[in-house]
Amino acid sequence: MTPERQNVGILVFDDVEVLDFAGPYEVFSRTRLEVGTESRRSYESAPFRVFTVASTKDPIRATGGLQVIPDHGFVDAPRIDILVVPGGFGTRELLDDATTLDWIRAVSEGAARTTSVCTGSLLLARLGLLRNRRATTHWGALEMLSAIDASIDVRKTERVVDDGPITSAGVSSGIDMAFYLVEKLCGREVADETARYIEYPRR
Amino acid sequence: MTPERQNVGILVFDDVEVLDFAGPYEVFSRTRLEVGTESRRSYESAPFRVFTVASTKDPIRATGGLQVIPDHGFVDAPRIDILVVPGGFGTRELLDDATTLDWIRAVSEGAARTTSVCTGSLLLARLGLLRNRRATTHWGALEMLSAIDASIDVRKTERVVDDGPITSAGVSSGIDMAFYLVEKLCGREVADETARYIEYPRR
Repeated sequence: MTPERQNVGILVFDDVEVLDFAGPYEVFSRTRLEVGTESRRSYESAPFRVFTVASTKDPIRATGGLQVIPDHGFVDAPRIDILVVPGGFGTRELLDDATTLDWIRAVSEGAARTTSVCTGSLLLARLGLLRNRRATTHWGALEMLSAIDASIDVRKTERVVDDGPITSAGVSSGIDMAFYLVEKLCGREVADETARYIEYPRR
Repeated sequence: MTPERQNVGILVFDDVEVLDFAGPYEVFSRTRLEVGTESRRSYESAPFRVFTVASTKDPIRATGGLQVIPDHGFVDAPRIDILVVPGGFGTRELLDDATTLDWIRAVSEGAARTTSVCTGSLLLARLGLLRNRRATTHWGALEMLSAIDASIDVRKTERVVDDGPITSAGVSSGIDMAFYLVEKLCGREVADETARYIEYPRR
């Protein structure tokens, strides 16, 4: 049981991979401390408050074209307890985007947990947040992760790697990363019951 | 190999469950006939063109608050070959919404395949599209599905049911539904390779 609702801030940007952000969004936003379908109709027993954040509140286009309006821009985002940095081809451009990198660094310093999905870990690596740590990414970006920071112990076969920052493998493994964290914070029963609610066989 | 690109229209509405629409969106939009990561950087070998449709182009709020701008309203949507009707608490209101029901019926008549995720099947049932057919829905809505149309052979333990309209169980099973259809239309190899791309162990 978490003492108070935690804020989950999910970064979004042009060419963010849809399932990278939508998977964790679904898991954190549907978690309830009370079992069943009725508890999902309100936020009463919700341990997390989930919102999207982008550099500005202008709509972004995810991979494939999905248009999302960010809930907050960098300047007006509320306190973030759990930061989720998703991946997608859009991360490549962000590797040189000082505004976004500075924001991730600042939020990460204040957050209880910093997490990434897929190639989101490249951004954490660029900031030195994975130095001398175990981490992973999408299978197509494993070499790039090493290239950005050779000190990273790159895990090629694990879906979720927790070594301070929590990184996960490609796309759909963000769902597993979210459940991993739900279990850590709210217990096994809450995580499993939420998985049952969204009919997701946890791995 | 599909002869030409097929249009996948995904219905969105207030209180649509995030993963219900985002799962199929991810699968259909990332499918490529050419293997590897590079092929995902363009639409060259993409067998599907995916877009969201709502009653109007005004932003909708999915469950949990995610804000999405629909690509099209009912009046300006392009031809739809594959219709995806997701679920979520918002479907309850749509059961009495003549505009949405009429649109689903009209699109369904012209589409090659009509599909649903989770409680989206309640809307298909309301239209009589599942009469005397096998179908499924979220475990919390199995009785409601029968109550809407007692002639439906409700499958309580299957994730994906294909009996003309393709219905799927709760939330995350929409991903499996999409892969089922990708395999049917593009072959097993394409479906499996796309699953590997998004690191999703197919069920």
